Amino acid sequence: MSLDRLIEGIIKKQNPTVVGLDPLLEYLPDHQRKEAFSRYGETLEGAAAAILSFNKGLIDALCDIVPAVKPQAAFYELLGWQGVKALAETIAYAKEKGMFVITDAKRGDIGSTMNAYAAAHLGSTMVGDNEYIPFGGDALTVNGYFGYDAIKPLMPFIEQGDKGIFVLVKTSNASSGEVQDVVAGESTIYGLIGDLCEKWGKGTEGRYGYSAVGAVAGATYPAELKEIRKRLPHTFLLVPGYGAQGGGAKDVAGAFDERGLGAVVNSSRGIITAWKKKGVSGSDYAEAAREEALRMKEDILTVIDKVIG
Amino acid sequence: MSLDRLIEGIIKKQNPTVVGLDPLLEYLPDHQRKEAFSRYGETLEGAAAAILSFNKGLIDALCDIVPAVKPQAAFYELLGWQGVKALAETIAYAKEKGMFVITDAKRGDIGSTMNAYAAAHLGSTMVGDNEYIPFGGDALTVNGYFGYDAIKPLMPFIEQGDKGIFVLVKTSNASSGEVQDVVAGESTIYGLIGDLCEKWGKGTEGRYGYSAVGAVAGATYPAELKEIRKRLPHTFLLVPGYGAQGGGAKDVAGAFDERGLGAVVNSSRGIITAWKKKGVSGSDYAEAAREEALRMKEDILTVIDKVIG
Repeated sequence: MSLDRLIEGIIKKQNPTVVGLDPLLEYLPDHQRKEAFSRYGETLEGAAAAILSFNKGLIDALCDIVPAVKPQAAFYELLGWQGVKALAETIAYAKEKGMFVITDAKRGDIGSTMNAYAAAHLGSTMVGDNEYIPFGGDALTVNGYFGYDAIKPLMPFIEQGDKGIFVLVKTSNASSGEVQDVVAGESTIYGLIGDLCEKWGKGTEGRYGYSAVGAVAGATYPAELKEIRKRLPHTFLLVPGYGAQGGGAKDVAGAFDERGLGAVVNSSRGIITAWKKKGVSGSDYAEAAREEALRMKEDILTVIDKVIG
Repeated sequence: MSLDRLIEGIIKKQNPTVVGLDPLLEYLPDHQRKEAFSRYGETLEGAAAAILSFNKGLIDALCDIVPAVKPQAAFYELLGWQGVKALAETIAYAKEKGMFVITDAKRGDIGSTMNAYAAAHLGSTMVGDNEYIPFGGDALTVNGYFGYDAIKPLMPFIEQGDKGIFVLVKTSNASSGEVQDVVAGESTIYGLIGDLCEKWGKGTEGRYGYSAVGAVAGATYPAELKEIRKRLPHTFLLVPGYGAQGGGAKDVAGAFDERGLGAVVNSSRGIITAWKKKGVSGSDYAEAAREEALRMKEDILTVIDKVIG
């Protein structure tokens, strides 16, 4: 009941980062696309087989040095149900390899609907007497616009299933301020949702003091990130925006506490397309990703020294 | 470029309602579950086959009297990729029968990710030289917390693909006020996002004066709904909360303009589980849904008289 499984992976690997598995077909090496297309044709099934193979290669190359992956649901939905099948298979494979999986789906809805999302992504479904795990992530990103009604259905999975959530607080995109920076009374809207994360997480804190209700706060807004870290002492942060979106180590420094805990920094394109930037052959894409993941880890460790468990 | 296809369906059928296809297994008649399980076993595949058959029966019974359906993605994700396949098949079947399909997925993300959601739900995916339609809805519900970055990727599908979106403004759930009713300066947050809908939709208005950027506003908050109708003269409203959630005809009256246009009212459980409430046999579930849909239509027409095209 907390995000301790994630935090322990971070401490063990001395690496507070997560790799975003956002596989567009164009990111894949030629041989991987060709191989899948030769088996399944240039179809959604073929494309889904190609990205699954790409993801497995990345997971194999990263699982001993990176504690977590974050598949972004959109890139799988782009390939229809065949892609969504590849999402479930990616999650299962990453878990098999000991990684913590954050399903980045940013779901949020009214209670009766959120029950279904919660069971789908963090729980199980009964069909007759049989129990099935539709997706099986360890944590889910959630949109808090509905208030607690969208959070409450997730609580049983947090409390009994050892799962976690990350609620959108201050997102990394350029127009995030349009709604999130609006000032209401003494707080911004993102500050207000941040405060709700503290409230919603109360009672689920683990041995490191962080609750199971984390928050998303972007590296592209370093001042706000630092403020959020101070304002929300029990809320673990998922920090997107490093790398391709422009954030660097200095930008994420404020997300960590004095122990080097409190945040996990995501990079997606920066790592999974590293082979293109390094100009290496497609057959080396997984090694290139590993190299870039190690560089990112070292880069972030320059601002926090080490992660103390 | 607008929501005119939906509006024309409403005028033609003199019925400003949409039926939510939110099929939990327990809503299905026994015979439908048994038939699917006997073919596919008590599996996710069997469950997905059962809900698809349920949906098809509903669509057959409703397509000549109801202009639109709104499948809720959560209930399909609950059955894994097999359920997501049933979602795509449900959408295709409803379109085949001439219905307007609102995919209720409440997606929202940063631009690069939203590109993928937009293509997945309103557009197409290229695999090699082949073009595939992953889901193919006519409109998508969207969460506006990210600001315009989450809307911009949808605009090409609106402008060139004749699609629409509905942005969450004031949702129907009890805790919606926690974030949405917060007052910032002279406006609530829902009012502010409502104003953004007017801004984002500008230039996409159709022959009835409504843009392609609609808004979600719940029947459970009739005063706010009325205020939203007045404040957003070019924004078509998707109104959930009628029926099972407690809203009645009087509660939705304020959502309509003086022509009886401007809104489409959703009922999900009230219609798809009507057979249980009426105490009829499961084999009559589709007829019971039709009867309830006609009752709902008549109920709503009492407050708007008729829909003038």
